[in-house]
Amino acid sequence: MPQIAYLGPPGTFTEQATRQLTGGFDAELVPFETVPLALAAVRAGDVLAAGVPVENSVEGSVPATLDALTTDDPLVAVQEAVLPVQFDLLARPGIALSEIGTVASHPHALAQVRGWLAENLPGASVHAASSTAAGAAAAAAGEFDAAISAPVAIEHYPSLVRLAGGIADVRDAVTRFLLVRRPGALPEPTGADRTSVCAVISDEVGTLADMLAELSLRGINLSRIESRPLRERFGEYRFFLDFDGHVADARIGDALTALHRRCSTVWFLGSYPKADRSPAGVRPSASEQAFEVAAKWLDDVRAGRLA
Amino acid sequence: MPQIAYLGPPGTFTEQATRQLTGGFDAELVPFETVPLALAAVRAGDVLAAGVPVENSVEGSVPATLDALTTDDPLVAVQEAVLPVQFDLLARPGIALSEIGTVASHPHALAQVRGWLAENLPGASVHAASSTAAGAAAAAAGEFDAAISAPVAIEHYPSLVRLAGGIADVRDAVTRFLLVRRPGALPEPTGADRTSVCAVISDEVGTLADMLAELSLRGINLSRIESRPLRERFGEYRFFLDFDGHVADARIGDALTALHRRCSTVWFLGSYPKADRSPAGVRPSASEQAFEVAAKWLDDVRAGRLA
Repeated sequence: MPQIAYLGPPGTFTEQATRQLTGGFDAELVPFETVPLALAAVRAGDVLAAGVPVENSVEGSVPATLDALTTDDPLVAVQEAVLPVQFDLLARPGIALSEIGTVASHPHALAQVRGWLAENLPGASVHAASSTAAGAAAAAAGEFDAAISAPVAIEHYPSLVRLAGGIADVRDAVTRFLLVRRPGALPEPTGADRTSVCAVISDEVGTLADMLAELSLRGINLSRIESRPLRERFGEYRFFLDFDGHVADARIGDALTALHRRCSTVWFLGSYPKADRSPAGVRPSASEQAFEVAAKWLDDVRAGRLA
Repeated sequence: MPQIAYLGPPGTFTEQATRQLTGGFDAELVPFETVPLALAAVRAGDVLAAGVPVENSVEGSVPATLDALTTDDPLVAVQEAVLPVQFDLLARPGIALSEIGTVASHPHALAQVRGWLAENLPGASVHAASSTAAGAAAAAAGEFDAAISAPVAIEHYPSLVRLAGGIADVRDAVTRFLLVRRPGALPEPTGADRTSVCAVISDEVGTLADMLAELSLRGINLSRIESRPLRERFGEYRFFLDFDGHVADARIGDALTALHRRCSTVWFLGSYPKADRSPAGVRPSASEQAFEVAAKWLDDVRAGRLA
C-alpha cells in the first residue's frame, strides 16, 4: 500500500484533509513532525506524496510550507482540499458542559474559538497544546477535562465524548491543503482546474504588474497571490500565484512561457482539480480553438500560403 | 502616561516590537489576549495605540490581524518594526545545557528551532505553550527545565539563566509589526516611508493587473502583496498592498485616487517610516516637481494661457 505523509500528529486538520485528498485510493497515512520533514520524505521517495497546509492554516505555518515547496528538488500538487475551520469540543466521558474546568488545544485554535468559550465555558481555563490533536490526547489521558479539536480527532480518541461541533467565532473561514508529489504525469484537465506557480522576479517597479498583465491578457483569473521575500538574494522577490486553468490548456501554457521569459525562475507547483469544482470561464479570444486557429494562420503566413 | 496595547502576554516578540515601536515616548504597555481585542481597545479609545504582528509572525495569526484591521472603524499604522526571528534558550538556574530534559515554547517557535534542539538538546522533550513567554513562565515556575523565548523574556523572568541566544534554524528570517492608532495627523514624510492599503476589487480577470499598473505607471515600488478572500461578499477580493512612499507624496496621492476610482473600497492603513530607513527611489517623471509642473501646465491650458 502506498504511503502518504502529512503534518501530524494523527487527529489534526491536516490528517483530515489528507484523508480527503487520498479518498480515491488505498494509502497508509504517515504523520511527520514538520512540513519540511514530510516534503523531504516525498523528495527522497520514502513516501508517494504529502498532504500539507497552504492557506490560512490552523496549526502549521503556511510561510514554512511555501518556503519548503520552493527549496530543493521540485514537487507538484495533484489534488486540493478545502476544509471549514470548525472545531469539535471533545470531553472526558461523564463530564457535563457545565463541569468543564480545563480545555486544551493549539494556541491558534484557542484564539479562533475564544468567543465561543467565553460564552459557553466562562469558567474554564485554556491550555496550550502542540496541535489540536495533542489537546485531545491530553484530554483522553485525563490531563484536561476537554479539548478543542478537528472533527477527525474523535476517531483517534474514542474514549472522548463530542459535546459540541461546528464551533467557530468567525463563520465561513476555510483552510486549504494540497497533496504534493514528485513530478510525473499530470492530473488530466477537468475544465475546473487550478494551477499554482512561484515566480521570482527582480525587485523593480512594474515587473509584477507586467507579469500579471501576461495572465490577464490571456483571460486568466488569478485566485490568490502572496509575496515572500527572498532573503538570500537581494533585489529579487518571490510571488506565489494560483490561477484558474490547467497547464495543458493553450492559454495557460502560453502565459507560463511568457512568465518564463520574464522571470529569473518559475517553479511550476502543479495543475489540479479545484476543490469546489467551479469551471474556469474562458474568453472566446483565449479558447483552445482560438489558439489553434491562430497558430495555423501564423504557420500559413510563414509558409507563404497567405498574403 | 498613555497606554499602548499589544498582543500579550508580556515577554513575547510582540512586546519586544511594541517597546521598539514606542521607543520615542513614555508609555505603559498593556497586554491583550488577542489582536482583535487589542484593536477594539484602540477603537474604543481605551488605549492610544496597539502593536500588532503583520507579517511572518512567531505567535499571532497574521490573517487574523489583517482581518481585524479591515473590520469595524478605520485604524492607521504610524510606525513599523522588523525583528529578527531569533530565540533565546532560558533555563532554570543551576542547570547545565546537557542536563535539560524538557523545553517549552509556542508550537511555531518550537518548529523554527527544531534543528537546533536536535543538535544541542537531543534528549530533551518539547512541550507546547500558548506563547513563547508562557513557556518562559512555566520554566520559571519549575514546570519545565528550559524555554525557547523572545530575547525580551528574560527581563520578565530574571530567575532564569540565558544559556544560548540567536537560535534559529533559518538565518535571516524576520517578523514585522506595526503600531496602529485611530486616524489623526499622519507621521511626517521622511523620504523613506511605506504606505499600506487594503483594496477591494471585483473578481474579474485583469482588475488586479490594472490596479498594479496604476502603481507601476507612477514609478511606485510594491514591497508586499497578499490576497485574502472576502467570504461574506462573493465575487470580490481583498488585496493588502505595501509600497514605498508617503500619502503626502504627489505620486502616491495620484495613485491612491486612481485605486479609489477602480476599487469598491480602499482602506488606507497608514504611511509611516520604513524600519530599514531605505530611501524610496523616485523616477524623474514621478517626482514632486514633475507633478507640480504638469498640474501648472494643465491649469494654463485650461485657462487658455497656452496653445
